[in-house]
Amino acid sequence: MKILIIGGNGTIGKKVAAALSGHDLIIAGRSKADIQVDINEADSITAMFRQLQSVDACICTAGTGYYGEFATTTEDQWMPGIKGKLLGQINLVLIGKDYMTEGGSFTLTSGIAAEQPARNGACVAMINGAINSFVLAAAQELKQDQRINAVSPGLVEDSMERYGALFPGYNPVPMQRVTNGYLLSVLGAVNGQILKVY
Amino acid sequence: MKILIIGGNGTIGKKVAAALSGHDLIIAGRSKADIQVDINEADSITAMFRQLQSVDACICTAGTGYYGEFATTTEDQWMPGIKGKLLGQINLVLIGKDYMTEGGSFTLTSGIAAEQPARNGACVAMINGAINSFVLAAAQELKQDQRINAVSPGLVEDSMERYGALFPGYNPVPMQRVTNGYLLSVLGAVNGQILKVY
Repeated sequence: MKILIIGGNGTIGKKVAAALSGHDLIIAGRSKADIQVDINEADSITAMFRQLQSVDACICTAGTGYYGEFATTTEDQWMPGIKGKLLGQINLVLIGKDYMTEGGSFTLTSGIAAEQPARNGACVAMINGAINSFVLAAAQELKQDQRINAVSPGLVEDSMERYGALFPGYNPVPMQRVTNGYLLSVLGAVNGQILKVY
Repeated sequence: MKILIIGGNGTIGKKVAAALSGHDLIIAGRSKADIQVDINEADSITAMFRQLQSVDACICTAGTGYYGEFATTTEDQWMPGIKGKLLGQINLVLIGKDYMTEGGSFTLTSGIAAEQPARNGACVAMINGAINSFVLAAAQELKQDQRINAVSPGLVEDSMERYGALFPGYNPVPMQRVTNGYLLSVLGAVNGQILKVY
């Protein structure tokens, strides 16, 4: 299976790539990748898919959103996340579906903040909620037996050291459970699911 | 109570305004309003709140998103909804909280599509999901006992004639039930709730 992983060098992406190493993997990202893409730009996404011609699965573990004090935040801080993790993931589907093989799948990444936002995490909560509802809708619309799911991870174990202090009370999620969410989406038959791993 | 209603001349807004007519109401909108505002523009929102100086409640029933064929849609069709119903409502809170009195409330509008998207409604589903999760997060962040909720209406009775054909199987929701969602948010004590009216 020809599997495109956007963000395949990130904390989650590299573990997902390792778990899928028996397949024909293409790691996409802004640097150090098999193929370059900036998901903030629709044109960049189009160029990537044109070059690849077709894929059997598209996984996105890339993108983040603003964390910071709510009292003083403004839309300028929210726009990068809206352009990247939100619209970027949506564009992967809107554009990528025309390059996706019959029965292929999209797996997007949302997160626990959609339901249990951390302090300072309103922007990320908003983005994650948006992705979850988008997946419900897109699953109804995709043709040619294409599927779409979101993996919604909690605080993952491999991020504990770096980010744990920002998320008191979040149960660290074993990487294998997170990875399994992506495997279930790509290799299983689920469709229109928010695969909550927390 | 000094209550600002953005979109107070719309299908839902005018019924909400009627139900709150005993209060000091300010109807805001792009035209035919007590005060002009374009929620697509942060500067316009700031100018409105500066002119009002303070409000005890802010209700937003304005904003919509793209409906149309998923197979051919592009981000250009999604941006007006992202700028308006999504970022517009968020900006009402980010900016308006500094003009909101102690104990005041925000009431945003999402919709059933967050959970049960209609065909062709992926953009609106995404926006509604975003608003719901934003409300959960913002409720944790607001100070001075300010509250925030979202009313999430289904297909409302007053829209049946115009839009009913696009939403087969949606139970039309009596306007009074919808109005009551806004009353509960403004006059009640609920906080961080998605008030589902469907």
